[in-house]
Amino acid sequence: MQNKSGSTPQAALSARLGGRKKPLIIGVAGDSGSGKSTYTQGIEWLLGSQRVSQISLDGYHAEDRAARRASGQSPLDPSANRLALAVEHLSALRQGKAVDIPIYNHRNGCFEASQRYEPTPVIVVEGLHTLYPDFLPLLDFAIYVDTDAPIKHAWKHHRDTRERGYAQDEAHNEITRRSAHYTRWIADQEAQADVVLRIHPSELGRFALGELAAEIPDTCYHLEVIVKPGPDDQPALYFPVDLNNMTRDSAMPFMLATVPSHAYGQPVNVLHVDGHMPPAALETLEQEICAFAGLDAPAGADHSLASEPSTIRFAQMLLAWPVLGLIDSLSG
Amino acid sequence: MQNKSGSTPQAALSARLGGRKKPLIIGVAGDSGSGKSTYTQGIEWLLGSQRVSQISLDGYHAEDRAARRASGQSPLDPSANRLALAVEHLSALRQGKAVDIPIYNHRNGCFEASQRYEPTPVIVVEGLHTLYPDFLPLLDFAIYVDTDAPIKHAWKHHRDTRERGYAQDEAHNEITRRSAHYTRWIADQEAQADVVLRIHPSELGRFALGELAAEIPDTCYHLEVIVKPGPDDQPALYFPVDLNNMTRDSAMPFMLATVPSHAYGQPVNVLHVDGHMPPAALETLEQEICAFAGLDAPAGADHSLASEPSTIRFAQMLLAWPVLGLIDSLSG
Repeated sequence: MQNKSGSTPQAALSARLGGRKKPLIIGVAGDSGSGKSTYTQGIEWLLGSQRVSQISLDGYHAEDRAARRASGQSPLDPSANRLALAVEHLSALRQGKAVDIPIYNHRNGCFEASQRYEPTPVIVVEGLHTLYPDFLPLLDFAIYVDTDAPIKHAWKHHRDTRERGYAQDEAHNEITRRSAHYTRWIADQEAQADVVLRIHPSELGRFALGELAAEIPDTCYHLEVIVKPGPDDQPALYFPVDLNNMTRDSAMPFMLATVPSHAYGQPVNVLHVDGHMPPAALETLEQEICAFAGLDAPAGADHSLASEPSTIRFAQMLLAWPVLGLIDSLSG
Repeated sequence: MQNKSGSTPQAALSARLGGRKKPLIIGVAGDSGSGKSTYTQGIEWLLGSQRVSQISLDGYHAEDRAARRASGQSPLDPSANRLALAVEHLSALRQGKAVDIPIYNHRNGCFEASQRYEPTPVIVVEGLHTLYPDFLPLLDFAIYVDTDAPIKHAWKHHRDTRERGYAQDEAHNEITRRSAHYTRWIADQEAQADVVLRIHPSELGRFALGELAAEIPDTCYHLEVIVKPGPDDQPALYFPVDLNNMTRDSAMPFMLATVPSHAYGQPVNVLHVDGHMPPAALETLEQEICAFAGLDAPAGADHSLASEPSTIRFAQMLLAWPVLGLIDSLSG
């Protein structure tokens, strides 16, 4: 294996990915409606769908919606999922083999015919139980998404009633019932993650003097990115903050912090970000990340993420960065 | 008067300063021991002592230390100061005339012979009452420094006992007695300032997860810079924040925020900063500020500020920036 300090010139990180025999598996756990797929989209957007694809563990639910209504079982209960089959499938994928993935259709609550899945160089596996102990040895990188209850519930209510055919009351009852299940079966996976992404409502008001004089849209979040740090082998990743903002009438609210901490019994770095990020600064960041990956531009640039709120776009990049660092350290 | 949008090329801001007939007067108010001179040093450091000099209003105390001990009067009481004489002197200086400035020697608590003062292009006038109503029409720019009591008292105690010959008890009693005087006579000048600099103890702990895993020295402050914003006529001032910090074992704690607010009955922008700033990022900032002022390097670079704690060095630049913006808008 070569590394960056070696004397042999290396192919670009993105090109080397295709040359690996076995795929890199990234596990993403978190509650339904926590935004798991939104936040990991940055990886696919950067590297392209030829190199990155997603699998949902929801296909491994043991019961469809009708059966669940009859049994009263929660899909958050691991025993209501065919996790052993999922482990078997991930083991095969890890060896580069194709598998038939069961598919759960969230729109109608029914299972569909399994789909043949040929592994891409990077596989993002998302689900409620992805960081359960049996999966961990099969994962190269583990992510946990923890969205504050009010945000998660608003997203989930919107999606369940608009896209998944739940009645208003039914969606609401389902959400309140799930909170205890979430604490019991899902939340403690967080401690296993290499990166935890927490999404809170904007907290910019607490940095104001007197009162905040800016409209903070509901889609402006306070992100907390908790990373298990490693050796210093990625280059600097400069995000340009314009301090002249302070002298301008047109200043936009913004905060950024990084704090080394001790949590889950180990060292973690905590990055906080909140508010508006200027498009130019986000583009600078994306260009630096592309340059590290050896790309002229994001390979999936046809799916523009520029319409996302700036904190989400920023989070997608923050999540992609340590994943690219891992790819860089593994590929040879 | 020319401005940046005019078609006539302009001499550098720093060079134009010398061509002005009347000096620019910057008033700095705040409690004794709040760090007024430390924070305004950045202006002199950038522009050089040929262009910038300081005057202290302490020379206008009505009584020396011995007389104060007998009368029991506080120097914070405006009536214990010859403010009318100070107004007269500032008026003369504003017209470019030299004046004889009374000098109070803090080491021995006595007045010394007045000193002939020839105005420099920029005069920084600091004192306890500098933003009192009679001074305001004479000031081009007003700064208020508000240091949290525990920090201010530690600084003042250290200075009063080491440099000013106070006994330990005497210094302590003087400090506690002053708090009420400060609230009564000094604090409300804050509302008159173009820029308020507040210095708090570091608050990085509140951004940690679990516990903070870094040593925060006592000299690491949380700075809050409150600016009355103006039109957008200064260029961007980029401070490069390295996001790769989050993936590194060696991450240093840091936070930065800007929030438009409504306070003192008007719009203000509030900038917060706390923690460690890498020397390279501070140098980038200083270079950008020098470039705006038309300087190759800080004119007063022989007095290196590089040994100051990074938050103080950063504050010096943050305070210099709107002053340079003002100079740029006035000189022609």
